[in-house]
Amino acid sequence: MAKEIERKFLLRNDAWRSLAEGRYYCQGYIPTQGKQTVRARIIDQQGYLTLKGPTQGISRSEFEYEIPLVDAQMILTELCQQPLIEKHRYRIPLGKVVWEVDEFLGQNQGLTLAEVELTHELQTVELPHWIGKEVTGDPRYYNSNLVRHPFKDWV
Amino acid sequence: MAKEIERKFLLRNDAWRSLAEGRYYCQGYIPTQGKQTVRARIIDQQGYLTLKGPTQGISRSEFEYEIPLVDAQMILTELCQQPLIEKHRYRIPLGKVVWEVDEFLGQNQGLTLAEVELTHELQTVELPHWIGKEVTGDPRYYNSNLVRHPFKDWV
Repeated sequence: MAKEIERKFLLRNDAWRSLAEGRYYCQGYIPTQGKQTVRARIIDQQGYLTLKGPTQGISRSEFEYEIPLVDAQMILTELCQQPLIEKHRYRIPLGKVVWEVDEFLGQNQGLTLAEVELTHELQTVELPHWIGKEVTGDPRYYNSNLVRHPFKDWV
Repeated sequence: MAKEIERKFLLRNDAWRSLAEGRYYCQGYIPTQGKQTVRARIIDQQGYLTLKGPTQGISRSEFEYEIPLVDAQMILTELCQQPLIEKHRYRIPLGKVVWEVDEFLGQNQGLTLAEVELTHELQTVELPHWIGKEVTGDPRYYNSNLVRHPFKDWV
C-alpha cells in the first residue's frame, strides 16, 4: 500500500515534449458506487490492477498489483466502463521530483495534463516554466471522469 | 482468469459437519454500479483480491490474485462496504466435485449455504443427502448482497 499525494496542472506550452519519450497507456475503470477507484491498466505488455481509496486532502490510499496481460485485456473489455482511456505518458525527472505528462488520445484528444507525486502534503515543488494552471482536486480531470465526460464534449 | 460455474443450495441437515474442518474467512466488497464484483478476502493469513464479471447463465468470469495480508486488511477496512462477511468454510471433496459449505457469522449468523463448482454448465452432480433446496441464481444469497441485506433482517 502506498499513499498517493499528487498535484495536477495544465500545460502552458510544448517545451516539455523534448524532455522524454512517451509510453502508451490503456486503462479503464470498474464503476463504483463510492469514491473508491478500481482501475485496470496496460503499460506496454504489463497488466496492472489498482485500487484507490477516497481522497483525503490531496492524498489517498493506493494498492497496485501486477497482473497477467491477458487478464488485464479481459478485465478492460468485459468489466470496465467504455470507452477506455488511452494516452501517452511522458516521464520527466526534474530535481527531486518526477513530472508525468499525459497526452490523451481518442475521446480525450486535445487534453494534456502534468502530474507530480509528492512524498508529503506540505512538500514544496518548483514549477517548470511549461507548467500552467493548477487543477488539483478538480474532478473533471480525474481519469475516471474522463470516461463519462470526455474532453471532446467539454464546452 | 477462470470461468466460475457454480450451483448453490440450502442445507437439509447437519450431516456435512463431520466431513471437514472449517476455516475462517473474512471478506468485503467495494460496491460497484454494475453487476461486476470486486472482493477482498482474508483466509487465515493470506489476502486475496478477486474481480468477477456479470453472471451469464450460471457462469461468470473470475480473476483472483494473492495480495499481502496488510493490504487486504486495509482494503477491507477503508474501501469495502461494512459490515464485512465473516464465515467458516468447510471443504468437502465428494466423488469428482468439491462441496463448500459456508456457515455464516455475525449479521448473517443462522445462514448456511453449500456450493459446488462445476467444470461446464451441463455437468450433472450427485447431491449428497444433506443438500436441501437449490438457490442458484437467487440474488439474496449472493455474498455481496448479504452485506446490504443480512440474514438477520430477513423475515
